[in-house]
Amino acid sequence: MLVVMKAQATEEQVHSVCQKIEKLGYRAHPMPGATRTAIGITGNKGEVEQGTLEEMPGVQEVIQVSKPYKLVSRDTKLDNTVIRFPGTAATIGGPGLTIVAGPCAIESREQAFIVAERVHRAGAQFFRGGAYKPRTSPYAFQGLGLDALKIMAEIRDKFGLRIVTEAIDNETLELVAEWADVIQIGARNMQNFSLLKHAGRLRKPVLLKRGLSATLDEFLMAAEYVMSEGNYEVILCERGVRTFTDHTRNTLDLSIVPAVQRLSHLPILVDPSHGTGKRDHVLPMSRAAIAAGADGIIVEVHHQPDKALSDGAQSIYPNQFALMMDEIEQIASVVHRKLPRGLQMETGSADTHVAKAH
Amino acid sequence: MLVVMKAQATEEQVHSVCQKIEKLGYRAHPMPGATRTAIGITGNKGEVEQGTLEEMPGVQEVIQVSKPYKLVSRDTKLDNTVIRFPGTAATIGGPGLTIVAGPCAIESREQAFIVAERVHRAGAQFFRGGAYKPRTSPYAFQGLGLDALKIMAEIRDKFGLRIVTEAIDNETLELVAEWADVIQIGARNMQNFSLLKHAGRLRKPVLLKRGLSATLDEFLMAAEYVMSEGNYEVILCERGVRTFTDHTRNTLDLSIVPAVQRLSHLPILVDPSHGTGKRDHVLPMSRAAIAAGADGIIVEVHHQPDKALSDGAQSIYPNQFALMMDEIEQIASVVHRKLPRGLQMETGSADTHVAKAH
Amino acid sequence: MLVVMKAQATEEQVHSVCQKIEKLGYRAHPMPGATRTAIGITGNKGEVEQGTLEEMPGVQEVIQVSKPYKLVSRDTKLDNTVIRFPGTAATIGGPGLTIVAGPCAIESREQAFIVAERVHRAGAQFFRGGAYKPRTSPYAFQGLGLDALKIMAEIRDKFGLRIVTEAIDNETLELVAEWADVIQIGARNMQNFSLLKHAGRLRKPVLLKRGLSATLDEFLMAAEYVMSEGNYEVILCERGVRTFTDHTRNTLDLSIVPAVQRLSHLPILVDPSHGTGKRDHVLPMSRAAIAAGADGIIVEVHHQPDKALSDGAQSIYPNQFALMMDEIEQIASVVHRKLPRGLQMETGSADTHVAKAH
Amino acid sequence: MLVVMKAQATEEQVHSVCQKIEKLGYRAHPMPGATRTAIGITGNKGEVEQGTLEEMPGVQEVIQVSKPYKLVSRDTKLDNTVIRFPGTAATIGGPGLTIVAGPCAIESREQAFIVAERVHRAGAQFFRGGAYKPRTSPYAFQGLGLDALKIMAEIRDKFGLRIVTEAIDNETLELVAEWADVIQIGARNMQNFSLLKHAGRLRKPVLLKRGLSATLDEFLMAAEYVMSEGNYEVILCERGVRTFTDHTRNTLDLSIVPAVQRLSHLPILVDPSHGTGKRDHVLPMSRAAIAAGADGIIVEVHHQPDKALSDGAQSIYPNQFALMMDEIEQIASVVHRKLPRGLQMETGSADTHVAKAH
Repeated sequence: MLVVMKAQATEEQVHSVCQKIEKLGYRAHPMPGATRTAIGITGNKGEVEQGTLEEMPGVQEVIQVSKPYKLVSRDTKLDNTVIRFPGTAATIGGPGLTIVAGPCAIESREQAFIVAERVHRAGAQFFRGGAYKPRTSPYAFQGLGLDALKIMAEIRDKFGLRIVTEAIDNETLELVAEWADVIQIGARNMQNFSLLKHAGRLRKPVLLKRGLSATLDEFLMAAEYVMSEGNYEVILCERGVRTFTDHTRNTLDLSIVPAVQRLSHLPILVDPSHGTGKRDHVLPMSRAAIAAGADGIIVEVHHQPDKALSDGAQSIYPNQFALMMDEIEQIASVVHRKLPRGLQMETGSADTHVAKAH
Repeated sequence: MLVVMKAQATEEQVHSVCQKIEKLGYRAHPMPGATRTAIGITGNKGEVEQGTLEEMPGVQEVIQVSKPYKLVSRDTKLDNTVIRFPGTAATIGGPGLTIVAGPCAIESREQAFIVAERVHRAGAQFFRGGAYKPRTSPYAFQGLGLDALKIMAEIRDKFGLRIVTEAIDNETLELVAEWADVIQIGARNMQNFSLLKHAGRLRKPVLLKRGLSATLDEFLMAAEYVMSEGNYEVILCERGVRTFTDHTRNTLDLSIVPAVQRLSHLPILVDPSHGTGKRDHVLPMSRAAIAAGADGIIVEVHHQPDKALSDGAQSIYPNQFALMMDEIEQIASVVHRKLPRGLQMETGSADTHVAKAH
Repeated sequence: MLVVMKAQATEEQVHSVCQKIEKLGYRAHPMPGATRTAIGITGNKGEVEQGTLEEMPGVQEVIQVSKPYKLVSRDTKLDNTVIRFPGTAATIGGPGLTIVAGPCAIESREQAFIVAERVHRAGAQFFRGGAYKPRTSPYAFQGLGLDALKIMAEIRDKFGLRIVTEAIDNETLELVAEWADVIQIGARNMQNFSLLKHAGRLRKPVLLKRGLSATLDEFLMAAEYVMSEGNYEVILCERGVRTFTDHTRNTLDLSIVPAVQRLSHLPILVDPSHGTGKRDHVLPMSRAAIAAGADGIIVEVHHQPDKALSDGAQSIYPNQFALMMDEIEQIASVVHRKLPRGLQMETGSADTHVAKAH
Repeated sequence: MLVVMKAQATEEQVHSVCQKIEKLGYRAHPMPGATRTAIGITGNKGEVEQGTLEEMPGVQEVIQVSKPYKLVSRDTKLDNTVIRFPGTAATIGGPGLTIVAGPCAIESREQAFIVAERVHRAGAQFFRGGAYKPRTSPYAFQGLGLDALKIMAEIRDKFGLRIVTEAIDNETLELVAEWADVIQIGARNMQNFSLLKHAGRLRKPVLLKRGLSATLDEFLMAAEYVMSEGNYEVILCERGVRTFTDHTRNTLDLSIVPAVQRLSHLPILVDPSHGTGKRDHVLPMSRAAIAAGADGIIVEVHHQPDKALSDGAQSIYPNQFALMMDEIEQIASVVHRKLPRGLQMETGSADTHVAKAH
């Protein structure tokens, strides 16, 4: 931390601030400059409460320096975290790109199977589908709940797809952890610290979506919450942030991809569906995400988006998804990645999956 | 809802869109204009999934018109909601201004009582103090929990102050509802719909803070979640939103006060502490909030902010709070309100306060 | 400036960074901490190009500390700047509040005189009216130009009101400086550095509106541009910034008032008309601005807003303006200010102003 | 335009609004719905002043529907605008991607030539370099002015590169138009309407950068300003917008690329240098921009960024630029574009480049 003194600050004021710092148990490093003095602080383990110092006579400003996260940081772990799924070749964070696809919400067994068959055929390794839907309106469709979880378990058995679905509170967290392969925590719950801690006590990978107005530090701190409880398999996901723009539902902040990769060892996916809210933006932004270096894509696919019970406007058609896969495959090599869609077919036509216990 | 056709849209395309609308069970109102045709839609109860129409040939844009909220709306209830607290003269939403004051977190019985005594003496009717603290870092102080709730119950008994404190999940919600007078739902949980629904099933007033990037509609819809479960005593609270500015912790959006009052019958308070994050901004913005027409203030007060375990930098001193009360009292009359600080003494546990003249 | 090293940075890397700093002509202050080393830099006059250091091995981050502005700063001049207008009692930045009122645009001599008469009668000391209008659309009304300037000069002669109007480029700047008393530079031109420099060479007060996405530092630096050319009479004006919110045209950031007053000696006004874009928000936010400590208000008034050629929706009626003056007067005393509307009448009923040449 | 009435609006109120609309010269289309009535308006040429209607009794809200731009719209011109440069194969907006590269500012003849030689060798068709620099601080380097323009003219002669440089006011506009091939108008001047109009009277292509907080509509309207004066060769450029994020200097909004392409026939480039402000983000975001479908890239390149007089931290090295070109070339085919770097050699001042193999 750094305390910047005012230009007119007296020597006594500088001295008092240094004394205060030492009294708080830290070490003060005064640095007299041409126009003013700055005082460095070391020895603090976490945040120093800056109000203490900010209000002292002669102080202009107090600046936080140290980053508060630990377990998510490359300072702690240099190598990329790679999440594996026993019994499959699918990984998240490895050299192979991760593709998660499926409808916004599970609406029926039939709908889910139609979409699953199509995305599996096109090469997705993960299936997404909402069982519990956080909706802005209490009067909107809220998801099929446990029935949806069971339908997705059948989809795993039949197609070998790993299942990603959202938990919205501590109750649904238990159920999702029981039935799915990856627990999604949605953007609106990114700072639901109670939910993060509970998820941290489980031993299932957690896909954590960036909050609508989360800074990079807050996003990483939310992951730190999960990790601080002992669950180290966290996947970050950029899904657009809220800005003044009105041509898309959210503003997809792709530059967080290299920023995360510089600071953290955790994998990061991109969601171009929520990130734009518009079907005709999904393919361009999927390509852009892979080109920017993301570890993969999570995308909404629906065979009849005009009948979807939620988010129809941003869901792509299965044939668009197949085209997206082709385009991503071409871009993958530019960023020294692979799209491992062949692998899954080798390991899993349906019959070979039968024995897989979950 | 309104569908705007492209300038080049053909008559058939317009016709197809109208047919689609009718098929969805609504009524279509085509309006041919000089350069293009727009089609109004009526008969929809909630949102029409706009993706359906947006993707049809010839369609330029689809615009939502109807507001999705009902119970929060002045369309449903013209008169202001006034929340009363039996056994006291304190109200929220009535002609008397509501002042909620206290430390960010309950740190000890002693600290809580010192602050409570001071804010009570200066005329506050409500005491706030965090028992469960949502903190950005998992390593930061998380609150005293049940012990804090019990301390605050003692404060209610001793000073007659009504207690406002935050619930952070469904578990703590039960406890807060049992021990406090007003359940606070924090900004980070504004769209924790599970929590909102559970709060809606209780019969205690809910103080709902605006999310960091919540639009007015989303804010009102969050209140609608609570009300849709049968709890009609919801208090809105502006506490600053996240913008590009860096001179304050958040940007206090005071103009939401008249905006809420136009659309809704619910009371709205302002939190200048979180709204600015800086002690020397709290008084100016408290005055501004009352001048803008807010129903009251919720403010952090600490007798030793430099030793506070959280948010010390934004807590004001008790004597600043007393000055704030004087200033607010003067502004109150300009907006045809009163600062009812005398009232509480009459009803309070009288014996301990008889002598207190103000 | 401060260089924060990575946790794994080697001693040689720290040493290299220090050498680089010294080579650039500054002084390096290494501060070894528990987990990492930070290096303070002093001796820099302006900004150090931080890219130089940011890219060196072992460097985590480079943080700017010194503020780049000088002449606008309270470090340079402790006392508030007060701008006086010879021949009147009107001031900007003194104990008396400054009220600037008038139509968005001068539309005709008749319209201008009607509004001027009304705002003068209610106690305004300054008259505003656009002669050159920056409009989003090239097809919208662009102002009457020189004719409008002449009409406003007549208004000054007749009512004793001082004239505030906007210059939009170097050409109109000359004309505005010739005919008006205060040169307004609009939000869209806040970083039109060519215009700022030209305005700095004139000797007329400059009212500088905050840009739609200007930080406090950028706002002050824009004022510094004007002052660096020798014109020290700069008036800052908050007029709302662009955020994600959609319930107002802009988000009025009133907390910049105390923030400016802490850092700078320059006066700051608030524009609730552009700041909200809605007539029914203008009065509440005017009251709030004065309560927050602003030096005054600049507000749009029109006797027939429904026929206004621009910004009708945000213009208040003359009787609303008179009510606003009453309310502001009551709030003024709370913030130890006065509303000097009596003064002007004493010094200037129309006849005494006749002789005043400009 | 659409007027939404309140739920409680009476029939007379609806009738009055319709009458008012007709009186304003438009046609009213009342649409009674289940809970409220909406009234469509047609026949308006430009914007209807919505304040007129918004304030009428019974009116809930007024919604603008028609887009105000004309010449920039695909409604007016379906085919993409392709800008050609006589004597070269370089185009902007055609099937070939456009690459503009060079230093932030021209610092010396030597520096400019070194960078120009390197970017030309790597295949750029356009050279950028600041002659007039808009700097946040009046004390920062402001550019070499005319000398820089002359240096760039020499670069055109020697390497066959077309020159892109910024004009900052009407005076420099004349000079830039005389010496350069493309006139850049910077983000801070995007709504300097005087400058836009003057640029519109010239017959040189205009590269218009998006303002820091410009919506898509405002961006297109700024282009409309240029076109409305008769200059139809406008190139749009996304360069990042201002948001709450702090991990990059600006937030690069790549999704504006497909949004522009849907609404307008104008070409759109992306500037990853200003768009991120960080060297290590430039390559990922350049790849992402091309993958998203942009017509090209404008990028800062410097051979000694640590000695650059401005924006060193975001300038890439020449060898990084060469790598970027290779990566872009691979992505180009995915989006059905070409990187025409071979072409220029054929047409360039051939003798000096014969030997250059790529």
